[in-house]
Amino acid sequence: MRKIFDEGFSMDLKETFVENIQTHKGNILTFRIDRVRCPDGQLATRDIIDHNGGVCVGALTDEEELIFIRQFRYSYEEELLELPAGKLEIGENADTEAAGRRELEEETGARADTFIDLGVFYPTCGYCNEIIYLYAAKGLHFGKQHLDRDEFIEPLKIKLEDAVKMVMDGTLKDGKSIAIIMKLNEMKRNGVL
Amino acid sequence: MRKIFDEGFSMDLKETFVENIQTHKGNILTFRIDRVRCPDGQLATRDIIDHNGGVCVGALTDEEELIFIRQFRYSYEEELLELPAGKLEIGENADTEAAGRRELEEETGARADTFIDLGVFYPTCGYCNEIIYLYAAKGLHFGKQHLDRDEFIEPLKIKLEDAVKMVMDGTLKDGKSIAIIMKLNEMKRNGVL
Repeated sequence: MRKIFDEGFSMDLKETFVENIQTHKGNILTFRIDRVRCPDGQLATRDIIDHNGGVCVGALTDEEELIFIRQFRYSYEEELLELPAGKLEIGENADTEAAGRRELEEETGARADTFIDLGVFYPTCGYCNEIIYLYAAKGLHFGKQHLDRDEFIEPLKIKLEDAVKMVMDGTLKDGKSIAIIMKLNEMKRNGVL
Repeated sequence: MRKIFDEGFSMDLKETFVENIQTHKGNILTFRIDRVRCPDGQLATRDIIDHNGGVCVGALTDEEELIFIRQFRYSYEEELLELPAGKLEIGENADTEAAGRRELEEETGARADTFIDLGVFYPTCGYCNEIIYLYAAKGLHFGKQHLDRDEFIEPLKIKLEDAVKMVMDGTLKDGKSIAIIMKLNEMKRNGVL
């Protein structure tokens, strides 16, 4: 790493909690507005979304196809192609791989012989504390889907190399899916997939 | 694309608005809870974060170094390395490149001869409608930073190939930055950067 400017650097950048101004609890997240103290002592407010975290799984068939989910996302009023994913249950943060295995089986009917840790993904760090745990899954065996009552999704298979093209041409927009696809692509190029 | 199951597919997956249950306005986002009708006619509730959108810029020096920002993120109580980014102003969605140029100059003091559109990034599509517009910037000229009153950041340069390694080993966690770094890496490998 190289610094760009010489002055004022390696400074303490930390903001500290002063008081909570508002808190509103939803079904899957909590919205709060906090007053914070900035590094220079001045006050500012921060809008924060508290979220319990999630998992996302890049499940590869023996033919190097990735399992995708086609799903309507009410937030964007749009159907999206995403890799299988889901929320962590309360207390499940200690075993995120188990959560990944559960979500993969529920959404696609697939169980995997091997799960590979691909690190964490911070979706939108300016105002949200969600952590998405990323995994690859290999050695797939297909059974039956077990969807939640209000979950309507369609699983599809797409070749990894085609998924990379769909990231590059902008067809795939979902952040966590982009991260996994491009990590798998790099692992393949490096001969470690 | 190949289907996995034969039954019930290519179905209408759309959820439609029934009524708003709660709305809470913050400084940069709005939290609302809506009741929706699922494809099977049943009702469900959705927690939604309305956000005006953002931009993120992978600015490359002539030595193929990416400009990063070290910043404390109150949401995670953690310092993160991210590419320069910022929120769109209201009405700015029509010219997101101008927003990218502004944020790059404010945070790093850099102006760019060339901006390249890298597509959009949906950070967390289950409950948020933020769209982050991704760009690459080349032909950099460095001037002075112009930070917001409550913005405390430190710019750094990291070689693109080292940034890719930091994505792969999990050091870099910020989603929008991962997407840009891995897209630039793929463009370089394909000889189009």
